[in-house]
Amino acid sequence: MNVTVRGRVRHHRTVTFDAARNSVLLIEQRLLPHEFRIVAAPDFRETARAIKDMVVRGAGAIGATAAYGLAQGARAFRGRSLAAFSRHVETVFKTLQHARPTAVDPVNAMTRVRASMRAGSTIEEQQALAVAAAQEFADEDVRHCEDIGRHGVRLIRNGMRILTHCNAGWLAFVDVGSATAPLYAARARGKRFHVFCDETRPRSQGATLTAWELAQQGISHQIIADNAAGHLMQRGEIDLVIVGSDRTLGRTGEVANKIGTYTTAVLARRHRIPFYVAIPLSTIDWKLKSGFDIPIEERDASEVLGAWGVPLNLKSQISNLKSRYVRVANPTSGARNPGFDVTPPELITGIITPAGIFKPRELWSRRRHLGFEHSQIE
Amino acid sequence: MNVTVRGRVRHHRTVTFDAARNSVLLIEQRLLPHEFRIVAAPDFRETARAIKDMVVRGAGAIGATAAYGLAQGARAFRGRSLAAFSRHVETVFKTLQHARPTAVDPVNAMTRVRASMRAGSTIEEQQALAVAAAQEFADEDVRHCEDIGRHGVRLIRNGMRILTHCNAGWLAFVDVGSATAPLYAARARGKRFHVFCDETRPRSQGATLTAWELAQQGISHQIIADNAAGHLMQRGEIDLVIVGSDRTLGRTGEVANKIGTYTTAVLARRHRIPFYVAIPLSTIDWKLKSGFDIPIEERDASEVLGAWGVPLNLKSQISNLKSRYVRVANPTSGARNPGFDVTPPELITGIITPAGIFKPRELWSRRRHLGFEHSQIE
Repeated sequence: MNVTVRGRVRHHRTVTFDAARNSVLLIEQRLLPHEFRIVAAPDFRETARAIKDMVVRGAGAIGATAAYGLAQGARAFRGRSLAAFSRHVETVFKTLQHARPTAVDPVNAMTRVRASMRAGSTIEEQQALAVAAAQEFADEDVRHCEDIGRHGVRLIRNGMRILTHCNAGWLAFVDVGSATAPLYAARARGKRFHVFCDETRPRSQGATLTAWELAQQGISHQIIADNAAGHLMQRGEIDLVIVGSDRTLGRTGEVANKIGTYTTAVLARRHRIPFYVAIPLSTIDWKLKSGFDIPIEERDASEVLGAWGVPLNLKSQISNLKSRYVRVANPTSGARNPGFDVTPPELITGIITPAGIFKPRELWSRRRHLGFEHSQIE
Repeated sequence: MNVTVRGRVRHHRTVTFDAARNSVLLIEQRLLPHEFRIVAAPDFRETARAIKDMVVRGAGAIGATAAYGLAQGARAFRGRSLAAFSRHVETVFKTLQHARPTAVDPVNAMTRVRASMRAGSTIEEQQALAVAAAQEFADEDVRHCEDIGRHGVRLIRNGMRILTHCNAGWLAFVDVGSATAPLYAARARGKRFHVFCDETRPRSQGATLTAWELAQQGISHQIIADNAAGHLMQRGEIDLVIVGSDRTLGRTGEVANKIGTYTTAVLARRHRIPFYVAIPLSTIDWKLKSGFDIPIEERDASEVLGAWGVPLNLKSQISNLKSRYVRVANPTSGARNPGFDVTPPELITGIITPAGIFKPRELWSRRRHLGFEHSQIE
């Protein structure tokens, strides 16, 4: 999407590949929203570190980063033996995989790149195929998000007030985003609407990333405390909810997403407000048979016990600005910190996919239409 | 309640009166939870400033502070004319009232003190009566909270996991608190239970004040992001909810309380978890006929856009430690910040008062039993 830095508007993707320098270029997301900076990972180990240290985060974005990282690593091979090359590629794969061991997107992305490489008979051919496959993966991520926008845009009418939770924006993908895709499409068509961004404690991705994205695109928005969504719904000030998803169960229509999504869905149902989940197809889990089988990551207590921010007396232009952690809570108290929750299908009005909008329980019967092979499902 | 400072356990009230020095002594609540300090307000203007600057906050606590402040101001009068004394007392009253112009408790408390003073025929008698009346107001606040605890304690069974929101603890009253009173009573009776404190963004009173209170009393507890309550309820990890109230409508049973209370009540109802509101009788508004007539204060956006904390490298023993504000959110975004919300009676299992536990819609028919005169109601 377009980003304005010092008055200049430029189009950026979250991740791109600089073939001349064999570098993966990333938006340094840990500096957002206070500073916009592109950083270069000059080798695959640095790319893995960027994934691990959350320079880049979000399903689509880390998938594409890993894909580029695998190509980058493959291109760095200097030997002549195909067997040694294969072993090297395997090392690169494992290194990038272990950067975020529970994430499925890097593995899926790299598996596709590796499969494409097999068509090459020389090291050079395989290296070229790797780059092409990584590029294709990234481009496809963008196309899928654009398709989500194309389908979702019809939900947005002039004057609507739309609530979103966390960041399922373009920063979480290569571009465009999932939950934000209908917003950007509506904006492009000149529709007028207002977005409420749930702050999304404890990591505040709504207040930092989503709000930054919307501000960059000139979309009318306000941040609210997560606590305020119920009150605004009660007062008739919210017309539509769109969120993303980390994992959607194809068999049941249950949606795992950032902690607080379930609460938002319960509130929306009470107030008969449409609640939509926007997802790329890669987010669908066709295997699990119950949302209770989704492991809920218990994250570090420090997230709940404090916050990351910058003192007001620091100017945002200052170079080397780092977001700063402060302890908010009582220092002798602990915390529970479940990272996400599961929303049941009966609370979900529809799931916006690149292939159309479906009822959550329709996913399973539409699985062929959604492009899944039997081999992927069983 | 007991507070442990440098290994020494002492009983403290939120506010007390030092007659020898004619000073109001207050816990400096803005330093909590990072530092515990008692500050002295040496004259009524300083007492008013302490209310205004939120050294002390909470309905019962600012009521008692204003009552003491009125007595303090009356005692500082140095003239001989009763008429001049009355004018002086009026000035003191207005000064303390204007410290928090929308709060009803200081006015109610000072009205009682001023009424008591009328029994005195000399300045000295009136001054003595003012101190006695302020003391009686503070003691009554404590008794009422203890009564809430006596009634509420029977809701708490061994092994329960109890959720509370914001701080309706002893720091908000003279002692004991409202929502915390049943917890402290249960603890005193040796019951075992665990408390989840909603962080309560944007001001984080749950993470700071309630968590500090529970830690001081050795009550098992954990802080959670407000977003996590729904998930914990869904997983069967919460058995009971107890919150306080800023204003409860006697005619309808609607409860205005800190933003997010309504959300918690909606979640509790979905999961059939008992939802109780603990209130002193002074919180009941017998006049308003609809919760929609309760003005919802829109507070400063900076609360939502940032957080108050301390850097980890500062030791909490450091004197003059001030909580520090950091900007968390995107600097070019604004915020909505409604300060509280209204929970309808159908979501409330019961209201715990000093006179017993009632269904919210029972309050009106029990109004005589609850000690209200017709003149107060109409």
